[in-house]
Amino acid sequence: MGENNRPHVVIIGGGFGGLKAAQSLAHAPVRVTLVEKRNYQLFQPLLYQVATAELEPSDIAYPLRDILRYQKNIEFRMTRVSKIDADNKKVMTIDGKDITYDYLIIASGGSSNFFGMQSIEENAFGLKDMEDAIGLRNHILSMVERAEYEEDPEVRKALLTFVVVGGGPTGVETAGAISELMSMVLVKDFPRLNLKEVKVILLEAATCLLPVMPQHHRDYTVEILRKKKVDVRLEAKVVDFNGERVLLAGDEVIPSHTLVWGAGVQAASVARESGLKLASMRRIAVTSTLQVESHPEVYAIGDSSHFEQDGRPLPMIAPVATQGAAVVAKNICHAIKGEAQETFVYKDPGAMAIIGRNVAVARMGNWEPTGFVAWLLWLVVHVIRLVGARNRIITVINWAWEYFFYDRSVRLIMPNVNKQIKE
Amino acid sequence: MGENNRPHVVIIGGGFGGLKAAQSLAHAPVRVTLVEKRNYQLFQPLLYQVATAELEPSDIAYPLRDILRYQKNIEFRMTRVSKIDADNKKVMTIDGKDITYDYLIIASGGSSNFFGMQSIEENAFGLKDMEDAIGLRNHILSMVERAEYEEDPEVRKALLTFVVVGGGPTGVETAGAISELMSMVLVKDFPRLNLKEVKVILLEAATCLLPVMPQHHRDYTVEILRKKKVDVRLEAKVVDFNGERVLLAGDEVIPSHTLVWGAGVQAASVARESGLKLASMRRIAVTSTLQVESHPEVYAIGDSSHFEQDGRPLPMIAPVATQGAAVVAKNICHAIKGEAQETFVYKDPGAMAIIGRNVAVARMGNWEPTGFVAWLLWLVVHVIRLVGARNRIITVINWAWEYFFYDRSVRLIMPNVNKQIKE
Repeated sequence: MGENNRPHVVIIGGGFGGLKAAQSLAHAPVRVTLVEKRNYQLFQPLLYQVATAELEPSDIAYPLRDILRYQKNIEFRMTRVSKIDADNKKVMTIDGKDITYDYLIIASGGSSNFFGMQSIEENAFGLKDMEDAIGLRNHILSMVERAEYEEDPEVRKALLTFVVVGGGPTGVETAGAISELMSMVLVKDFPRLNLKEVKVILLEAATCLLPVMPQHHRDYTVEILRKKKVDVRLEAKVVDFNGERVLLAGDEVIPSHTLVWGAGVQAASVARESGLKLASMRRIAVTSTLQVESHPEVYAIGDSSHFEQDGRPLPMIAPVATQGAAVVAKNICHAIKGEAQETFVYKDPGAMAIIGRNVAVARMGNWEPTGFVAWLLWLVVHVIRLVGARNRIITVINWAWEYFFYDRSVRLIMPNVNKQIKE
Repeated sequence: MGENNRPHVVIIGGGFGGLKAAQSLAHAPVRVTLVEKRNYQLFQPLLYQVATAELEPSDIAYPLRDILRYQKNIEFRMTRVSKIDADNKKVMTIDGKDITYDYLIIASGGSSNFFGMQSIEENAFGLKDMEDAIGLRNHILSMVERAEYEEDPEVRKALLTFVVVGGGPTGVETAGAISELMSMVLVKDFPRLNLKEVKVILLEAATCLLPVMPQHHRDYTVEILRKKKVDVRLEAKVVDFNGERVLLAGDEVIPSHTLVWGAGVQAASVARESGLKLASMRRIAVTSTLQVESHPEVYAIGDSSHFEQDGRPLPMIAPVATQGAAVVAKNICHAIKGEAQETFVYKDPGAMAIIGRNVAVARMGNWEPTGFVAWLLWLVVHVIRLVGARNRIITVINWAWEYFFYDRSVRLIMPNVNKQIKE
């Protein structure tokens, strides 16, 4: 069989799932096309550190073409998918060039879910994409710059109030990091900054933080965050945000210019608008073999697919995507050979969340460390998972620098890059 | 004399000149306010390396508040100056808060000068600001991504033609760096990229490159650039660019989507619109003591001031700004004590330009090295001048990485950060 007669596998998305699927197909008798709107793989778990001026964008991004350079059977296309035409086995892109496929893997990831609250969607910062993170960093630093010369104490307090919504790892990590950015770093830069006027508020609609963790971890997390002066409020639900005032259910108003939204995720628009059958969080419904029932040559993995195990949909986290990707790669080979499809069984590798300097919580099987041990574990796991030796080295330098000097070297308000500003 | 009764010195601009002036006034009996629109000092000489994916933005930017942290008599204000009211000794800012001064130092730097050619101003990339550099990097990488899937050979060639205008160090360095980015790095990433279709063209209206260099350096530079497949054209004048076609005087058309403008500088708008008397390149006319004649309490230095020595205006380069800053700081102290003002005499420290990997030209007094020696000298001088140990370490890692692996780790197309794109 010639190279060009091989079945064509198209993968939508170059995140954890899509990239793993591409790599798992390296020696399969297929041609692969990976379609991704960015030219890099984004290490999403560390986005919040870009947002809080701890890491640089390039530390958590790695060029996809570089990762895939030595894989002979793959082509990379940087473009956006505008439509999936599953009936005609075709993917349409915004540059007008259709791509036909024999097998399709939808791995388009997730996006923030604002549950239809448009004011929040317009004014809040999500934490799903590099735009979000750089935008939030610029915003936080600008707020403090403005506050320094603001004479009205009420206005100043609103500028210095940072509201984070969502008690999952993203919310916990972001709230802890903003608090430390203020109390350990910016207080040195801004001689007039009064830390008593700075408020970091973490809001969670449910009754606890970190639902994936055991109860004693949840309690520990609340305790540590409160020690870091984060105002943790449970059963607090945000209903509106106009950019200057956060409105809670029950009519309480928090004057604040900053709302970070870590309270909900849904499948990205490519999956949502695929025309395929959707389930909760608008993720694509899949069979036990990760196939779309109506189109068995279409697979969906990770955040874009709804897969139930033990009666509950799998969470939207990286391990679900990478484990799914490995099974889908095998299943495509099975399909080519006319063999039966394998069933996907997710193995929970554990969970971890960093709360701040020297403090984290983790769960790996029966091991449930907290504090410094969990924090070291978190560091090691995240450095290992970063792609590329240079990214690892530089990230470790940045972390070590901050650790030993209590200093965030990258607290730069970076420019708008698309709008051409002359001087 | 109480702290608050001290004379108030306002410095506009936190570039090489403004920062040096601020630091030189550290122990003077004055209060200093430094006004700068960015929150960081930008190391402009390396902007072209950000544009060609060799360094990260944060490598050449350093937070101003950090640099000035230990200087007791200074306040930093991040804002833009909207107007200078010299008659009332007042600086107006865009956030509506006026700043009155006893002494004013205008160090607002330079901006690209398009000599009134609006089509070029709208469509070309300057290289004076971080926006320019990040925008140009995104653009170059996107052109190659688009070219890879373009089937029309004429369109593809236009996408792969990069025109750099200006034979000074900026133009030479950028042209050489784009050429090496293509031939040493991107060719490995883009399997379909045919280097024969890539064209880097360096246009200079005058009869030679690098006029500040001795003749044998100029010849050497042209020779090396041509070896690197840069099409060097002297006496070629650009008159129009619509984003797809570069028009030269004499009606030659070069189909290209990329024009980098390194052909002219002028004073930044703050100085141009100051209402003070201007000279060539719309720089503020100053006396031999760097004062504005009509308002002797106003000083102008660096790119924003026109100062003639040996019958010619001083060039718009960093050493002119920093040497001027030191003199102005002394002159303000003299003025306070009622002493005579010192005359500014510029001492030329030499010049250098990098042409590519292992090749540069330099001139320091009678020493005029070329090749590897000049290149090493260039590296050492530029690393030493970077602010901050972390920036030095990371820049050296990035350079070393590229040097040994022929690889630019940071070739990322980074997002638009101000426009909020949801997913």
